[in-house]
Amino acid sequence: MQSLTITFLGTSSGTPSRTRNVSSVAMTLDGTVLLFDCGEGTQHRLLEAPVRSGAIEAIFITHLHGDHVYGIPGLLATLSMNGRTRPLDLIGPPELSVYLESTLRTSFHNPSFEIRLHDVKGIYRGETFTITALELDHSIPSFGYCLVEDDHPGKFDPDKARALGYEPGPVYTELIRARDPRVLGAARPGRRIAYCTDTRPCAAAVELARGADVLIHESTYAGDMRTEADERKHSTAAGAARIAAEAGVGRLILTHFSSRYRDVIPLLEEARAIFPNTDAAEDLMTIEVTR
Amino acid sequence: MQSLTITFLGTSSGTPSRTRNVSSVAMTLDGTVLLFDCGEGTQHRLLEAPVRSGAIEAIFITHLHGDHVYGIPGLLATLSMNGRTRPLDLIGPPELSVYLESTLRTSFHNPSFEIRLHDVKGIYRGETFTITALELDHSIPSFGYCLVEDDHPGKFDPDKARALGYEPGPVYTELIRARDPRVLGAARPGRRIAYCTDTRPCAAAVELARGADVLIHESTYAGDMRTEADERKHSTAAGAARIAAEAGVGRLILTHFSSRYRDVIPLLEEARAIFPNTDAAEDLMTIEVTR
Repeated sequence: MQSLTITFLGTSSGTPSRTRNVSSVAMTLDGTVLLFDCGEGTQHRLLEAPVRSGAIEAIFITHLHGDHVYGIPGLLATLSMNGRTRPLDLIGPPELSVYLESTLRTSFHNPSFEIRLHDVKGIYRGETFTITALELDHSIPSFGYCLVEDDHPGKFDPDKARALGYEPGPVYTELIRARDPRVLGAARPGRRIAYCTDTRPCAAAVELARGADVLIHESTYAGDMRTEADERKHSTAAGAARIAAEAGVGRLILTHFSSRYRDVIPLLEEARAIFPNTDAAEDLMTIEVTR
Repeated sequence: MQSLTITFLGTSSGTPSRTRNVSSVAMTLDGTVLLFDCGEGTQHRLLEAPVRSGAIEAIFITHLHGDHVYGIPGLLATLSMNGRTRPLDLIGPPELSVYLESTLRTSFHNPSFEIRLHDVKGIYRGETFTITALELDHSIPSFGYCLVEDDHPGKFDPDKARALGYEPGPVYTELIRARDPRVLGAARPGRRIAYCTDTRPCAAAVELARGADVLIHESTYAGDMRTEADERKHSTAAGAARIAAEAGVGRLILTHFSSRYRDVIPLLEEARAIFPNTDAAEDLMTIEVTR
């Protein structure tokens, strides 16, 4: 099975602190890097992370607030200065192309590679995965994403092969390579990771996260700021945990913490009371996604 | 005499490295902070520096290349989130207003304070200083700046006061407060700091730096990259040193080093061979400007 890891590059909402940068998450599938959000300073975090910026295949943007996009132009400039020629896919709300075009034009910035803009409402097809988006519930258009790894073929069953008249030998290797369904067990579903920020707890987040191995959900506030969370269209830790429970995910990881919380343990405890398998993201934390 | 310090927030050209961020310099006069350039991650460096971001009175931009401006929108957002209401002055090439307006608009960013754009070719008047700009020689319009502190009044001369018929007493305090030129010695000229980047060595840099206490000059390359420096309209360390010598400055500080140089000692040596009182800037280095 290919390796699938998540590295948190920025876990603060709004403004950076000394320990948390603004939003960005890298997902790495066997060396292919997918970036989700790109707040200011993402390229700086990449210098410290076990993630090669040259291996970024696509950048997925949830919404146009600065703490999610102000790192894009600088990252593109650095990729150009590093001599990139391979195209880069960019996925996000329609306004993203306007932001990018005007920023690059007014800063005399002409990337050395093609930037391919994709419609956020389409399905993004990678070599071994797909990524879909759904609109969440925030103060401006904001989209959550779900990465779905392709199903893994079932295990080779020599009894089935023999029943079909095949004798053990090189032909077995060929049958496996051809993924012949007659000789394989049941396919094993690919892993799923959902990424929901910025948003109030909403039905679209549940839909995206349904059956996910990992749900990364924003948790800007603790319960004491419930009213502000609603007004500002953000989630509390408990709100994120209820989404995780309803969607039946394997694991919840909280992120996008307001800088008012130096210590996020109280948020973690609020969430665990509802959904026990919860962790709080930290900058440069890397996790392996397993079944 | 008021305190006058320079803090280097970013000393790398083009892209950040693990130890050097892209361009920004803060000058602090008795608590008033003036920022020169604002590359991506400047607000992150401010979190570590002995410089209060809330005390920033004005931001001076040399040119529109990303490594000098991509940190502006995020810094403005953070100042807003910190509740700033005091206006902020912004000075730079005419294209700066287009960059800023389009970036703020497309990222749904409405600052909580007024941003007052000034013509770079005018004279910026602070409470105790003026700042003037001259166009340098770069691949796009680029301006150097010179901060000139107001002259300090001469020392009170009791003999002159007595010759005018004043007897020692409270009247002396009044004469000093009124800065009566009849009882003061020669005025002492204010300190000068010139900031020249990005540019080839040019006459405008000499003019700006004439008699400066400190010249901060870009030094992107060492002598081995002389040809590239010319082509790309940058300076070598030796080029910067010749400007310092010609302008008769007190002290030269090199900055804006290409990330190809992990060790800038060779650049420092090249410059010192021409202008001995030279230092190489490092991120978070603070110097006191003295006469």
